[in-house]
Amino acid sequence: MDIKTLTLAIPVIGVLGLLFTVWKTSWVNKQEEGTGKMVRIGEAIREGAMAFLKAEYKVLAIFVLVVAGLLAWSGSTSEDSSILIVLSFVLGAFSSGLAGYIGMKAATKANTRTTHAARTSLGRALEVAFAGGAVMGLGVVGLGVLGLGILFLLYTNMGWEINKVLTVITGFSFGASSIALFARVAGGIYTKAADVGADLVGKVEAGIPEDHPLNPATIADNVGDNVGDVAGMGADLFESFVGSIVGTMVIGAAFATVGEFSGDARFGGLNAVVLPLLLAAVGIITSIIGTFFVKVKDGGDPQKALNMGEMLSGVLMLIATYLIVTAMLPERWSLNGVDYTAMGVFYAVIIGLIAGFGIGFITEYYTGTGTKPVKEIVDNSVTGSATNIIAGLSVGMKSTVVPIVILAIAIIGAHYVAGLYGIAIAAVGMLSNTGIQLAVDAYGPISDNAGGIAEMANLPKEVRGRTDKLDAVGNTTAAIGKGFAIGSAALTALALFSAFMMTAHIDAINIANPVVMAGLFLGGMLPFLFSALAMSAVGRAAMDMIKEVRRQFNSIPELKAALGVMKRNEGVDEEKWSEADKKIFDAADGKAEHAKCIEISTKASIREMIVPGLVAILSPVIIGFAGGPEMLGGLLAGVTVTGVLMAIFQSNAGGAWDNAKKMFEDGVDVNGTMYYKGSETHKAAVVGDTVGDPFKDTSGPSLNILLKLMSVVALVIAPFI
Amino acid sequence: MDIKTLTLAIPVIGVLGLLFTVWKTSWVNKQEEGTGKMVRIGEAIREGAMAFLKAEYKVLAIFVLVVAGLLAWSGSTSEDSSILIVLSFVLGAFSSGLAGYIGMKAATKANTRTTHAARTSLGRALEVAFAGGAVMGLGVVGLGVLGLGILFLLYTNMGWEINKVLTVITGFSFGASSIALFARVAGGIYTKAADVGADLVGKVEAGIPEDHPLNPATIADNVGDNVGDVAGMGADLFESFVGSIVGTMVIGAAFATVGEFSGDARFGGLNAVVLPLLLAAVGIITSIIGTFFVKVKDGGDPQKALNMGEMLSGVLMLIATYLIVTAMLPERWSLNGVDYTAMGVFYAVIIGLIAGFGIGFITEYYTGTGTKPVKEIVDNSVTGSATNIIAGLSVGMKSTVVPIVILAIAIIGAHYVAGLYGIAIAAVGMLSNTGIQLAVDAYGPISDNAGGIAEMANLPKEVRGRTDKLDAVGNTTAAIGKGFAIGSAALTALALFSAFMMTAHIDAINIANPVVMAGLFLGGMLPFLFSALAMSAVGRAAMDMIKEVRRQFNSIPELKAALGVMKRNEGVDEEKWSEADKKIFDAADGKAEHAKCIEISTKASIREMIVPGLVAILSPVIIGFAGGPEMLGGLLAGVTVTGVLMAIFQSNAGGAWDNAKKMFEDGVDVNGTMYYKGSETHKAAVVGDTVGDPFKDTSGPSLNILLKLMSVVALVIAPFI
Repeated sequence: MDIKTLTLAIPVIGVLGLLFTVWKTSWVNKQEEGTGKMVRIGEAIREGAMAFLKAEYKVLAIFVLVVAGLLAWSGSTSEDSSILIVLSFVLGAFSSGLAGYIGMKAATKANTRTTHAARTSLGRALEVAFAGGAVMGLGVVGLGVLGLGILFLLYTNMGWEINKVLTVITGFSFGASSIALFARVAGGIYTKAADVGADLVGKVEAGIPEDHPLNPATIADNVGDNVGDVAGMGADLFESFVGSIVGTMVIGAAFATVGEFSGDARFGGLNAVVLPLLLAAVGIITSIIGTFFVKVKDGGDPQKALNMGEMLSGVLMLIATYLIVTAMLPERWSLNGVDYTAMGVFYAVIIGLIAGFGIGFITEYYTGTGTKPVKEIVDNSVTGSATNIIAGLSVGMKSTVVPIVILAIAIIGAHYVAGLYGIAIAAVGMLSNTGIQLAVDAYGPISDNAGGIAEMANLPKEVRGRTDKLDAVGNTTAAIGKGFAIGSAALTALALFSAFMMTAHIDAINIANPVVMAGLFLGGMLPFLFSALAMSAVGRAAMDMIKEVRRQFNSIPELKAALGVMKRNEGVDEEKWSEADKKIFDAADGKAEHAKCIEISTKASIREMIVPGLVAILSPVIIGFAGGPEMLGGLLAGVTVTGVLMAIFQSNAGGAWDNAKKMFEDGVDVNGTMYYKGSETHKAAVVGDTVGDPFKDTSGPSLNILLKLMSVVALVIAPFI
Repeated sequence: MDIKTLTLAIPVIGVLGLLFTVWKTSWVNKQEEGTGKMVRIGEAIREGAMAFLKAEYKVLAIFVLVVAGLLAWSGSTSEDSSILIVLSFVLGAFSSGLAGYIGMKAATKANTRTTHAARTSLGRALEVAFAGGAVMGLGVVGLGVLGLGILFLLYTNMGWEINKVLTVITGFSFGASSIALFARVAGGIYTKAADVGADLVGKVEAGIPEDHPLNPATIADNVGDNVGDVAGMGADLFESFVGSIVGTMVIGAAFATVGEFSGDARFGGLNAVVLPLLLAAVGIITSIIGTFFVKVKDGGDPQKALNMGEMLSGVLMLIATYLIVTAMLPERWSLNGVDYTAMGVFYAVIIGLIAGFGIGFITEYYTGTGTKPVKEIVDNSVTGSATNIIAGLSVGMKSTVVPIVILAIAIIGAHYVAGLYGIAIAAVGMLSNTGIQLAVDAYGPISDNAGGIAEMANLPKEVRGRTDKLDAVGNTTAAIGKGFAIGSAALTALALFSAFMMTAHIDAINIANPVVMAGLFLGGMLPFLFSALAMSAVGRAAMDMIKEVRRQFNSIPELKAALGVMKRNEGVDEEKWSEADKKIFDAADGKAEHAKCIEISTKASIREMIVPGLVAILSPVIIGFAGGPEMLGGLLAGVTVTGVLMAIFQSNAGGAWDNAKKMFEDGVDVNGTMYYKGSETHKAAVVGDTVGDPFKDTSGPSLNILLKLMSVVALVIAPFI
């Protein structure tokens, strides 16, 4: 194939991915939705989720316009290409938003349909939930490959030199990253505010069970799962995917001048630039193939089905990578005295994969139910919530050790076999199967939602049982997904960092230079500031929610009366209540103003996402222009190191607390005594879980984006400083 | 004065400091000790503290011997000076241990005497407590100046070139730092294990009040205050003091070849090397002068007395610094194209002082009673312990921002006015008044102990009132002390870092080098690992203590009976108990086996200090030899940045939780409702305080030492890698 055909093929494969999502979406839509109550609940969740996206996108549109204006203004005096940076930026932002929209739309359709399917069969339910997840997964990679592919095609036809092309394409990554950060932060705040609000006032103060329709925050809680775990995660992975590809392309451009490359007619010396794009495109195909193998017969094991799909596409991708790498790169070449080989690049991909799996397994070890560290937290809950918290913090901090060692080895190893390009391509290798990986990830919250709907719609217990079974199996996969997310974030940040240095024309950033050291300190501090902002934002948003729920309980007479009835009949089966009580209780049905709670959560989360987002975007700009490129380099290194550490610490501490709490729900043995749900010890574990919530769902995952976003911002402004 | 006289004068001033401590010690010893019960309690505390030191020093002696052997062995093939490195190391370790011993001996004599003095007058009590603290303060600086001064005198007479002299002197700093780390960690574990053990079983399970003699862990708890806050802190500041001086000396050696210096006959070109030593020596004199102004008449304000002493010696020191710097340094000189001025060096000292005060005031803002951040934690306690914890973590993380910005500005500023030497001398400036600063710091735990003794000895309430008043006033000073500790640790680490680079003959450590980046990640991870180890060590040691206290309550019949009596008469005034009950109760007096608890705490803390200590010492050795000097440089930079951040985060979160809890003890208004001690809200705040304990007293303060120790180890091994 010659260059034209291949670079044309890339966006076509992107379109193929999108067509797959259209097909899957229509398949999901064709499934039955179940009872009228289920339909109503499903609609309420969908409307809430969409209302959030609408409100969020309104604010983000303003942000995009302002930044686009600034980019156009700052570039107007320098380069003719600046307007195209703006175009790339807008397109990146738009694609990121669209990926979130497509994914959430599918997820909020799949949830009720999964519940309905679970009424008859586990296999059916898996199919529906996974189809919903697959829309998200393939939507993300399809849009990424399509967007980057088209821009590359467009700009290479402008007759520019490759570095200029890539500078402009960087705008796409900037757009994707900035939207991702806002989406992650806002989604994280939304879901935790609703969660805490529903729990603290509904469950604790008013004493009504979880997911009870009388609790005005219930629907908001379920909406939160969608905006946080689906839309937020989708935007997150979109930016990881795009960032790793762009970082590798920029580094690969250095090879354009090498004889062995220019002697190869196919890409006019750009093979190393096109390689990551091509791998990503092929990953779409292997992911689609994989989805067809996720099937389970009744009585079968859903875990095996998911593993089957992922393993198969993983193996296919590995074979394809070998073939593509050896076909596209010269067997051996050298640049600036460093020797490279095609096999070295392939080994770098393998190193990335092993590192990703390694970090994933460690994540599972530190956070999984019944593992030694989680059991340690359980044991420490016996002496109260303080010791539970100390144990969780300690486990979270300890859990950084092995992943960091793995990362350090991977960085040195990938660099050893293929230089900086090796570090970058290792991240691409980790993410090339994002399509199916994300499908599995997104299937989790869909099953979770399906369970909530089963509860709210009063479906028989076995339905909830099936959705719970679905929900439980995704854990290991999710842990490995997290490992890939963290590993690729670190490697991508390093790739972007090197790309920044190339673009800013600096050869070395010397730590012993005090300006660099000052940058390192400031950068290291940002993840602390960012986490603190995210955590206090969750606190404030939850307070708003608590006040609203209290207001409704006090001012809506029917609700107040129904709560009184519930209190009066505490511990009495609903059927044994007096007729008068039943009447009062039924009268409250539908009186809770769910929409108000949704509005509160929406407003609060969007209000609170602004400051952390601006901190992330403005700090590299300020340091870059005030302190120069070397100080900015120090800032990036600092934010990368502590960002990765704080992300691992917070995510794993949160995950471990969560599962420690869950272990009490099934009953757990500590030194010969059994402890169950409702015991004082369980309550101590609930405190840990609540502390862990903003850790693992708000600040932790946002940090991965933070460090890449800052690197991308640096890369974008590099030509101007 | 010519060189001989001046370098002779330095150790003489060190001796002067030590003579002052001898004089103060004998003065303290001459004070009355009070009632027989007070004497007995005081003796028990003193014996426990000394038993701990003895056990600790036994282990540390082995450590010192092993390291000395390794140093001698590794050096035997290379340099004739290696045996003198060993000598320096052993002397540093010994001096550090001696400083802790002198300080603790004085503190454990001063505590009962302070209690006794407080029976009659506040002014008297202040005088005794401060005298005890002054022994510690002047002991530390006296030993530091004496040790360094003698070694410098000795080695410069060997006819070596200055770099060799300084390499050998570095061993002193290494000895001081390693002992300091072990002492801080062991002391921190001891005090928290005893504290938690006494609280959880004694107060919560058995329901007996704090500091009650029936609680077998009470004495251990009071011993803990001495081994943690006195001996631990003394070793800590000894190493800071020595580290900053040595770092500056090494950097100053670069000027020895500059014409303007060699033209100056006084120090044969070594003025910049001798300057930090001389400043430190003069600081002894100004500190001693300051102590004479710490006096308060009855009814006077002890805070003013302390401020008076510190301010006066601060102003004297500033004047002396100006005179010495301008006298010792040429007005203007240049090296490698960089211009330096004597005034620039003086400005660097001022920058250091401003930075230290700035960080101190911020520390006070984030942790002081009634400040906005602490009130935020109080407000968040209303919704339970989980929100209290989240708020505390958030405050701790947020509190890193301003100190880091100050540090970054100070680094750039000090470097701007006086290069790397400016950064180093800024740290010396911060610490030159350590003598009186530490006297004020150590006076805190002495007053605290005095209060405990008043309680245990059943003294009238006004005695406790006076000691509480003494205890309360040290807070702002202590916060500023913390600011100086953190600021100087960061600057000293940077100075040692530069010294390491000079010794290892590397000009630049390029972050873009993957090996450096890997080192940066690994170094950044170490403070997380170290904190996790410290926290789980506290957990395990506390468990040992809990088991021992439970065992005594169950197996000592008199104790068991007395506890039964207390439970039976709960809420009844002791005088109204039946005669039989009184008899049973009295029979239990002295039956609690305090010594066993002391032994448990001692054993556990010494067992648990080993691993964190070895991690700190071995990691630079392993990385240095396996990864080379550049990777080691990355490691040091990483550990410095996250070490400082985690130290600020943990210390401030812990301090803020502590004071939030204290605010409930006086009663606090949240949104119009008053909350008091014993309320559910107060209990939520107690959880935060317990979590904060190992943060602020074990892992947080140890990190300051960790980062310097690792730099010193790197500096010591630099010639070999």
